[in-house]
Amino acid sequence: MKNNEIPYKTYLTEQELPTAWYNLRADMKTKPAPLLNPGTGKPLTAQELTPIFCEELVRQELDNDTPFFPIPDEIRDFYKMYRPSPLVRAYCLEKVLDTPAKIYYKFEGNNTSGSHKLNSAIAQAYYAKQQGLKGVTTETGAGQWGTALSMACAYLGLDLKVFMVKVSYEQKPFRREVMRTYGASVTPSPSTETEIGRKILAEFPGTTGSLGCAISEAVEVAVKNPGYRYVLGSVLNQVLLHQSVIGLEAKAAFDKLGEKPDIIIGCAGGGSNLGGLIAPFMGEKLRGEADYRIIAVEPASCPSFTRGVFAYDFCDTGMICPLAKMYTLGSSFIPSANHAGGLRFHGMSTILSQLYHDGLMEARAVEQTSVFQAAEQFARCEGILPAPESSHAIRAAIDEALKCRETGEEKTILFGLTGTGYFDLTAYQQFNDGVMTDTIPTDEDLARSIAALPKLPEA
Amino acid sequence: MKNNEIPYKTYLTEQELPTAWYNLRADMKTKPAPLLNPGTGKPLTAQELTPIFCEELVRQELDNDTPFFPIPDEIRDFYKMYRPSPLVRAYCLEKVLDTPAKIYYKFEGNNTSGSHKLNSAIAQAYYAKQQGLKGVTTETGAGQWGTALSMACAYLGLDLKVFMVKVSYEQKPFRREVMRTYGASVTPSPSTETEIGRKILAEFPGTTGSLGCAISEAVEVAVKNPGYRYVLGSVLNQVLLHQSVIGLEAKAAFDKLGEKPDIIIGCAGGGSNLGGLIAPFMGEKLRGEADYRIIAVEPASCPSFTRGVFAYDFCDTGMICPLAKMYTLGSSFIPSANHAGGLRFHGMSTILSQLYHDGLMEARAVEQTSVFQAAEQFARCEGILPAPESSHAIRAAIDEALKCRETGEEKTILFGLTGTGYFDLTAYQQFNDGVMTDTIPTDEDLARSIAALPKLPEA
Repeated sequence: MKNNEIPYKTYLTEQELPTAWYNLRADMKTKPAPLLNPGTGKPLTAQELTPIFCEELVRQELDNDTPFFPIPDEIRDFYKMYRPSPLVRAYCLEKVLDTPAKIYYKFEGNNTSGSHKLNSAIAQAYYAKQQGLKGVTTETGAGQWGTALSMACAYLGLDLKVFMVKVSYEQKPFRREVMRTYGASVTPSPSTETEIGRKILAEFPGTTGSLGCAISEAVEVAVKNPGYRYVLGSVLNQVLLHQSVIGLEAKAAFDKLGEKPDIIIGCAGGGSNLGGLIAPFMGEKLRGEADYRIIAVEPASCPSFTRGVFAYDFCDTGMICPLAKMYTLGSSFIPSANHAGGLRFHGMSTILSQLYHDGLMEARAVEQTSVFQAAEQFARCEGILPAPESSHAIRAAIDEALKCRETGEEKTILFGLTGTGYFDLTAYQQFNDGVMTDTIPTDEDLARSIAALPKLPEA
Repeated sequence: MKNNEIPYKTYLTEQELPTAWYNLRADMKTKPAPLLNPGTGKPLTAQELTPIFCEELVRQELDNDTPFFPIPDEIRDFYKMYRPSPLVRAYCLEKVLDTPAKIYYKFEGNNTSGSHKLNSAIAQAYYAKQQGLKGVTTETGAGQWGTALSMACAYLGLDLKVFMVKVSYEQKPFRREVMRTYGASVTPSPSTETEIGRKILAEFPGTTGSLGCAISEAVEVAVKNPGYRYVLGSVLNQVLLHQSVIGLEAKAAFDKLGEKPDIIIGCAGGGSNLGGLIAPFMGEKLRGEADYRIIAVEPASCPSFTRGVFAYDFCDTGMICPLAKMYTLGSSFIPSANHAGGLRFHGMSTILSQLYHDGLMEARAVEQTSVFQAAEQFARCEGILPAPESSHAIRAAIDEALKCRETGEEKTILFGLTGTGYFDLTAYQQFNDGVMTDTIPTDEDLARSIAALPKLPEA
């Protein structure tokens, strides 16, 4: 197909929606390291995980070998309400940048949760329902994941209890209202509803909460209440599995167009979007069928890939969760308060960590004022107000396209536009007012949090 | 095509995007009454309108005969960034309502302005640019129109000055930030930047502003600054012309599916969405080729169709604009402060007013708590958080579908889902908290504002 025949937006039909998720682990020569029980230092078993997670999700979490998991019809039907998502040719951005590069983005923001999180939320809620559970619990920081899960639970008639970090609960009342409209119960964390919450409140009266604390409360409620389990929106292998629908659709759309990306770019916090977007492309690369340059983009204020270490660490700041082998800044690392967007997790998906360690992908860190410059430039020509998270990928895509302008190369760039920024306008206001600042952690800061990594018990 | 083969979402291809807007007036036996000069009582001429509006838009405004206006390629290219918009089969809502009715909605919310307003914003900005203007001015209340216009002006490199009603400017800082991100200058109205603004501020210090005042300021700046014109987002004939793209796409999608709506429902404030959605269907009805039941849904707190009179009135509360013959509650009518959504205009498009007067469509008024009940029910099963405006149409669609459950009729219902409610969460919060109330104007209230209708000078 000729360049000028490529539409602005390529939609697959609903019949072309993937029928199975792709499990990238099946093609990895070096598998991601297993989760460890922090008490024994031994790999966690299905038996140890099922009191917390749904059975089918535990199966998906631990399976490093099965290449495809069929997507149940009920989940595909839900997907049909907002998927297949478009693969968009950024003609206007190309023109503004005056670049010979062809820029594409896979847009995951056309749903009320405003991001790709819904792809895994409906899957996790579905398996909970199928297991006959009454409900699920989760934590949310900025609220993207909580919103997605509340939509999925409303659709399935499942009870949902969200612990929302208190400072976000107070500063983002609109996110909270969306979740309430979808019938979720939203509790500011720390709360007096859990033992750990009461303990923390007694110890630190007036605390505004943290994600680590909210996780602890959500897990406690799930474990103590019959018929409930805990669910999580990123980092886990199961989440990357569900998110593979992004990459599978993108690849199918490129095949339809007779095109092929040279460079694939995604923002990286816990890794759910990046892992999903690259899955089938990385699969080809692992099998030696094709080559792609793959770039993870992270905030300079939370640079797990580029300045972290590859080691076993806790997944939460409260240190009650399993140990995962990943690129980490240490579970005590907290990004500077002036960091506006998401992507604040101290670690990274074990799958992506292993791939990065094996030299199969690159990573770069970008500062937030340059991220918002890219966001504004993109919004003004492409018409979509991007989420700050997604704008990290936009920054790198623009930088690569500008390099093509220098060299004259006609590279094809694909990036993941994970979501919209309608609930992030406080950050845009800081940028518009010229008062946004960058904070990069010092070597001393990182040395301190990395020095606090747990010592493994003898396995 | 069989019922169960109908996809959730029907997208036209970009090649199938309409190539011309449809001018409903060409098929009307009784044409809408002309705008009058309030000073002379005579129909306004193109010469009188061109100092305020762009030349091509004046031509479109006054043309009651040309059935089709070609859509310039540049506008079609912009449309391709977010159009064709999907025609969605509301399978989940049908199931929840347990109705034999088939429910479809045309979804206009998948763009950053969050509504259909962008369809006319890009057209008006384009003609301003084509005329060699430097910029345009406008007013905005809640901010939907201002956002759409700021996106269009950013794309075309056109200067934009928005006068935003002061109370909204202060209460909706996020709407303001979106406009600023797109490069618009946003001024709270009344301001000290205009003569009329200074006069009003001197007379009513501490006023929080009104749409009428913001219109006056925007018009004053447009008229006094060479290279500027004023643009408006609803009510006008030209706006309904541009919005016909909604109905043309919907009709083409129905034709593709081999389906046909029995009932077409749209919310009605100034009439831009309803006029656009019904255009080609009403055209068939006017030409005697098909019949459709068409229902306008308005707020009980601002019931121009159902409780207004059909008479010449001012389009603005400031009484500086032309006189239009329309269903009106009187230009001094202001909806109760507890009215949450848009749809607060005291009058109605002259085209729709004439059609309603001629018995070609129905109208009904609904109260806002029942509107938000419908919004919540829709959100929980269809996954989209609707704008309060759009939810008026959802209310009526649900009511019609429930009637089908009573009678067993398998009617096909189409409604316009004009936008999303991401910036209306204060209203959702009132509803979620159970403190939302309804206010219906008393007969005495309406008699008073209707008694103040202008007397026409001898023409």
